[in-house]
Amino acid sequence: RGEFDPTEHPHRRYNPLTEQWVLVSPHRAKRPWQGQQEKSAAPQTLAHDPDCYLCPGNRRVNGELNPDYRRPFVFRNDFSALLHDTPAPEATADPLFRSAAARGESRVICFSPDHSKTLPLLSLEEIEAVIATWQAQLEELGEKYLWVQIFENKGAAMGCSNPHPHGQIWANDFLPNEVAKEERSQRAYWQKYASPMLWDYARRELELQERIVVETQYWVSLVPYWAVWPFETLLLPKFLLQRLTELKEAQRQDLALMLKKLTTKYDNLFETSFPYSMGFHAAPFNGEDNPHWQLHAHFYPPLLRSAQVRKFMVGYEMLAESQRDLSAEQAAARLRALSDIHYSLR
Amino acid sequence: RGEFDPTEHPHRRYNPLTEQWVLVSPHRAKRPWQGQQEKSAAPQTLAHDPDCYLCPGNRRVNGELNPDYRRPFVFRNDFSALLHDTPAPEATADPLFRSAAARGESRVICFSPDHSKTLPLLSLEEIEAVIATWQAQLEELGEKYLWVQIFENKGAAMGCSNPHPHGQIWANDFLPNEVAKEERSQRAYWQKYASPMLWDYARRELELQERIVVETQYWVSLVPYWAVWPFETLLLPKFLLQRLTELKEAQRQDLALMLKKLTTKYDNLFETSFPYSMGFHAAPFNGEDNPHWQLHAHFYPPLLRSAQVRKFMVGYEMLAESQRDLSAEQAAARLRALSDIHYSLR
Ligand SMILES: O=P(O)(O)O[C@H]1O[C@H](CO)[C@@H](O)[C@H](O)[C@H]1O
Ligand SMILES: O=P(O)(O)O[C@H]1O[C@H](CO)[C@@H](O)[C@H](O)[C@H]1O
Repeated sequence: RGEFDPTEHPHRRYNPLTEQWVLVSPHRAKRPWQGQQEKSAAPQTLAHDPDCYLCPGNRRVNGELNPDYRRPFVFRNDFSALLHDTPAPEATADPLFRSAAARGESRVICFSPDHSKTLPLLSLEEIEAVIATWQAQLEELGEKYLWVQIFENKGAAMGCSNPHPHGQIWANDFLPNEVAKEERSQRAYWQKYASPMLWDYARRELELQERIVVETQYWVSLVPYWAVWPFETLLLPKFLLQRLTELKEAQRQDLALMLKKLTTKYDNLFETSFPYSMGFHAAPFNGEDNPHWQLHAHFYPPLLRSAQVRKFMVGYEMLAESQRDLSAEQAAARLRALSDIHYSLR
Repeated sequence: RGEFDPTEHPHRRYNPLTEQWVLVSPHRAKRPWQGQQEKSAAPQTLAHDPDCYLCPGNRRVNGELNPDYRRPFVFRNDFSALLHDTPAPEATADPLFRSAAARGESRVICFSPDHSKTLPLLSLEEIEAVIATWQAQLEELGEKYLWVQIFENKGAAMGCSNPHPHGQIWANDFLPNEVAKEERSQRAYWQKYASPMLWDYARRELELQERIVVETQYWVSLVPYWAVWPFETLLLPKFLLQRLTELKEAQRQDLALMLKKLTTKYDNLFETSFPYSMGFHAAPFNGEDNPHWQLHAHFYPPLLRSAQVRKFMVGYEMLAESQRDLSAEQAAARLRALSDIHYSLR
């Protein structure tokens, strides 16, 4: 059988945050692909698109006019999945038919007035304005809700229906599944080791230098040891941080730099506007100390081999276990080697 | 606020099998869709396609010749994610960098020689031959492996790269995540109620008659109370059953009928060859009694509004919680109302 080689031999890795395994089958990247091809998004060249319902001054689907905004612009999602004022189902003790109330708000955040500028193409000042807007939203919604999910779906492959660069903010009065898992696992780690799990993890990764993608003064992004998506990354502070609202000025500036570098590398990988879903996880607004929580962002990009060929998380993955076709180290090495100057500007 | 109405008001439902919640936002189905359109698969009209690497007598990607098969045909996946004879990583106690061995086999099963006949278009005898092949595979692989995952990825939208009707069988020497969850939850329920969870559940659903899609003599398929995908279904026996290998003759015949009816309704919903991933969960081959296990199949279809518009499980779903846009009862009523004669044969 020979020696174990993680770039060649199937094995499983454990995600201590979600307490789930992933099947790593690195030899599988060699198979030919005859399945679905993604359409590459045509690059957006107009700074203002008269047909875009997110551009300044244009009319939205519900008939409202957008203001002539110059900075990030936030508005209530015209088709919110969560509503603030909605009746609750009756509580029952039935183990097979259990439901619960869900109240909340869904908002949209246009990153800038410019229709053609995704995150990597914005200036550092403009990205910092996005972060400042996230902070203001967290301040406001954190007063009313236990959880505020900041996220971005980028690209048609990730269900994004409008190319105008924008993200979303969904606030709700419960801890959603994925957050509840991280709450439990980080708490258990803290109880055992008296140190935040992701703080320890970042330090170990910085020592190992095997999976780092970008390092800046205050931040590090890496392909986690347990990554599921081919080029998944985890963005971590190099200091203790529970929430975005607690950032110092220099840390916020440096986060803008990190986001610009990371998303630029993503675009450079296949010379395309790289699709992903990304979002922040941080201490919930539970009115407690949360020493076990370390803020982080997950980037989940679907592409595997090219701008046209994505990874499908389907049969085995849905019914049994996530499976990946290259090792985390291989993915990190490829991303790390890329320029942080955007290909369209070269 | 008025009365709670599950077809109108956002709420959460609990999946007792996976111990996860789903956010139900039924009012959301009203929003317009301006995002990605799926390509509908052109109907396959040839019974034998000379360019198909799965058709009888043709050459596969790896150069081997397929036999001139007349019944379901099973072969080793030319690009197996799992390998039988592979070195294991060293075991470590490190909580942040944990890996484990993964050994197994991946096989492909062509349902029939006919390139154009998906499950709903096969005769009952032909479907029964597929079930008999699954049984034989379980007998053989169950001798060597703890877990045997039978599944089908159907359609390009579900990562299927060849339209010749086929499924897959991945066997492995560990309990994959999703199965481990069901093992835990069913065991806990059994310990508490001394009855298999899904046996109780099927009986309750048959009484309620709110979410049933198809009922045959021995089987029932329904949209589970906690469904995540828009038209997700759960297929359950109306008798105690731990594994497919334990089916009586009449139960197997009736399963063929159930599969034909259910997949016909799926195709009829949007008059298209309906994409999905489906697969069976059953008692693992652990050499123990498994009184808590009840065999079942999950069908996870991505389409939401039409053959072209799917549900995207992306940002909020990946980072926070699955979210659906119509209630389980609404989905069940639509499927139930459809004919079980295939639209192409009318
Ligand atoms: O084995 P296939 O059909 O080539 O591949 C398909 O099914 C596999 C098992 O669900 C997935 O891992 C792949 O991403 C998918 O494209
Ligand atoms: O809100 P949008 O952008 O219209 O919708 C997109 O993101 C939502 C949140 O992740 C998902 O529920 C939808 O399936 C997706 O299409």
